[in-house]
Amino acid sequence: MSTSIPGEPWSTGVARGADGAVTVGGVDVRAFADEHGTPAYVLDEADLRARARAYRRAFETAFAEIGAGVDVYYAGKAFLSVAVARWVHEEGLRVDTATGGELAVALRAGVPGADIGLHGNNKSDAEIARALDAGVGRIIVDSLVEIERVADAASVEHPAPVMVRVTTGVHAGGHEYISTAHEDQKFGLSIAVPTATSEHVVAGALSSSDAADSPAMRGLLAVLARPELRLLGIHSHIGSQILDPSGFEVAARAVLTLRAQLAERTGVLVDEVDLGGGYGIAYLPGEVALDPDRIAKDVAASVQATATDLGTPLPRFSIEPGRAIVGPAGLTLYTVGTVKPVRIDDGSVRTYVSVDGGMSDNIRPALYGAQYHAEVVGRLSTAETVLARVVGKHCESGDIVVHEVRLPADVRAGDLLAVAATGAYGRSMASNYNHVPRPPVVAVTDGSSRALVRRETEDDLLALDLG
Amino acid sequence: MSTSIPGEPWSTGVARGADGAVTVGGVDVRAFADEHGTPAYVLDEADLRARARAYRRAFETAFAEIGAGVDVYYAGKAFLSVAVARWVHEEGLRVDTATGGELAVALRAGVPGADIGLHGNNKSDAEIARALDAGVGRIIVDSLVEIERVADAASVEHPAPVMVRVTTGVHAGGHEYISTAHEDQKFGLSIAVPTATSEHVVAGALSSSDAADSPAMRGLLAVLARPELRLLGIHSHIGSQILDPSGFEVAARAVLTLRAQLAERTGVLVDEVDLGGGYGIAYLPGEVALDPDRIAKDVAASVQATATDLGTPLPRFSIEPGRAIVGPAGLTLYTVGTVKPVRIDDGSVRTYVSVDGGMSDNIRPALYGAQYHAEVVGRLSTAETVLARVVGKHCESGDIVVHEVRLPADVRAGDLLAVAATGAYGRSMASNYNHVPRPPVVAVTDGSSRALVRRETEDDLLALDLG
Repeated sequence: MSTSIPGEPWSTGVARGADGAVTVGGVDVRAFADEHGTPAYVLDEADLRARARAYRRAFETAFAEIGAGVDVYYAGKAFLSVAVARWVHEEGLRVDTATGGELAVALRAGVPGADIGLHGNNKSDAEIARALDAGVGRIIVDSLVEIERVADAASVEHPAPVMVRVTTGVHAGGHEYISTAHEDQKFGLSIAVPTATSEHVVAGALSSSDAADSPAMRGLLAVLARPELRLLGIHSHIGSQILDPSGFEVAARAVLTLRAQLAERTGVLVDEVDLGGGYGIAYLPGEVALDPDRIAKDVAASVQATATDLGTPLPRFSIEPGRAIVGPAGLTLYTVGTVKPVRIDDGSVRTYVSVDGGMSDNIRPALYGAQYHAEVVGRLSTAETVLARVVGKHCESGDIVVHEVRLPADVRAGDLLAVAATGAYGRSMASNYNHVPRPPVVAVTDGSSRALVRRETEDDLLALDLG
Repeated sequence: MSTSIPGEPWSTGVARGADGAVTVGGVDVRAFADEHGTPAYVLDEADLRARARAYRRAFETAFAEIGAGVDVYYAGKAFLSVAVARWVHEEGLRVDTATGGELAVALRAGVPGADIGLHGNNKSDAEIARALDAGVGRIIVDSLVEIERVADAASVEHPAPVMVRVTTGVHAGGHEYISTAHEDQKFGLSIAVPTATSEHVVAGALSSSDAADSPAMRGLLAVLARPELRLLGIHSHIGSQILDPSGFEVAARAVLTLRAQLAERTGVLVDEVDLGGGYGIAYLPGEVALDPDRIAKDVAASVQATATDLGTPLPRFSIEPGRAIVGPAGLTLYTVGTVKPVRIDDGSVRTYVSVDGGMSDNIRPALYGAQYHAEVVGRLSTAETVLARVVGKHCESGDIVVHEVRLPADVRAGDLLAVAATGAYGRSMASNYNHVPRPPVVAVTDGSSRALVRRETEDDLLALDLG
């Protein structure tokens, strides 16, 4: 037998009951499956709230010690529903949105506009107008085109609060970071100063900047040039699922330096700096997530040292933990449909375990080769374990849920199987591939369960088909 | 200036009008965008029907010459709506479905059950019952567990017509095929005979088979052992987006050999063999799709030669062209939102062109690194071209629509941009990532347009959120 429960990567509310079956938030998975069916996303409310609190407290404490304020933003893109937006706001977080749709959910949850940010590299006029109507606290602008577009939509009487997203050349994700001069990606404006004289042709000449300015500096100057915009500050984001905190320190230094350069150039010392986030979580047993207290202290110490070097007072900061709030709080509950031993070329056997969902409810294994952990949760097996691969029911050989995991040799049709840490980017990236309706998101709290997002039905799908 | 229109990879109904703007099926893309909005999937009905006809005629002709019948199945997973199921059936194709949802669409289109197949490695009891109720022409069974499950759901009076899916060790996709002894994938039962004495422990002992039998042979014997099942034949599928036809010939020989072995063993010479499909299409200018006439002739010659060698009469065949019917018939129409030149590390500049959709409406570039072709279609530009990357509006740096394409240097916000050959696996794998509603699928025919699948609305999304 083998079980990693309780413990990471499972949410803190996951435990084994007296008879060996698993409970989440005090709810037995068998009763859960009877009531809500499978597949289903199970969201551990207490765990999610505790992670939100832990991040807010860790950063507030660490930054208070250096005399700076800090806001923590929840990443709506990871998973957003009305209830979850309300929960994280109740825990003192603000909400980052990336589209009009995410903005609509946050507003419906009662999150005040001032506590909402709007991201995105290609906001439509309608999305910008809607954000301004809602009085969002900040719009993160991403290109010179967009700076003009937001300015055109705002007014001198009601200037739009904007942050300029810059790229620092620091890329992180996983265990190391890399640093490049230029970033070959769609987001942000580079802080790298041009090396070729033709650069101004590329970025477009602006009256208040010259050919020696970086795209980021030009963006900041372009914002200052428009009285319909209020320059809140500078935003940088270096990656996602980051487990090595040193990249944050390098990026923070680059952004604070840019802030000082802008002040020297224009006399404007911007009030806020967003250090991004994308803090990594544990997906597998034995993996260690970033610790909120540790990352908060490291980043606070780093920005304080940089500000001292630069001789500038500290701004207000914001950070975006990303999946670290909702990712570990969720799991996906499946029912096993078929078990098939397949001999592979090295002579060994791999047991293919098919579940009643798949790449439609979790595209990350196929999309990124993401690794997950699974366990039989409806009972405690005492059988030996076998090398297994958990696959879905879709008509595609790449439809893999868990590439490799040891499961009890007696795993069989009807078993309930849970995949850990699917709270982020599971439901939010789900599709109806093969006309499979998407699973519900069900919260478990203190022994009771409640659907936050209901299960789709075949009628929902067919309602879009006009025949 | 540079335009690949008309020509591959565009559907045959794509042309440039008198003023340089593009028309599809006689509909000007500007008028289309005014009426239906963007992003939108545009489906060229005449092109789709012509491809369905071309495949049916090519295979009917080539197989008639060797004295064998053949059925052509449309792959519902590529894209299925009620109208499209009706069209392909009107053109003489049958419809393959992979789930209860796809089955529901085909039935709603009026496709008779007898002309529908049900695939899938993990069919639920409900899906099996529904398929039997509908009198589907064939259920492709995928594992020993499933053989018993289908048998249990059927009756001796109304036996279920089944084909056994086998794996031949032939993998194809792109320009070459490979051959392995065992296939490390979820689909099918291997034709490879066991080399280890422990194999029977793995696959489970069956009374009518012994330890020296391949999993495929055991599956066939298991079907014959159940009077509730009618063994139609053997099914094999070697991959997708296949451009080298030689893999089909190797696989066909393996399957026909297995059929002869089963006849020798049991006296039962099964009536049908499905040779699979997954025929490759052109995604980029200069790529050459498999030619229906050529592949039909090659496969017919190959199976005839194999049957002669084996001394067995030919069965009825079926083939599954896959994306080759709907893929080239579709394009996605976007509106450009922002244009941003980004200097990359080699000193050159890449122009990032953001459109109003992205990985939510076409996950294939992110999922498979799939290459697509794009063109500005609302006007004919005479500008020089620049190296561009078309990206979406999602909050993710991997949100790429076209990795690399040359676009006119004057590409600008408001331009209509089309991406070719998105008819397959575009809408069918679409998500609501970032709460972006999915685009409509609009058919264009003889100068008029009609939505087959309507655009999702924010209300559709919020209707699932229970607050």
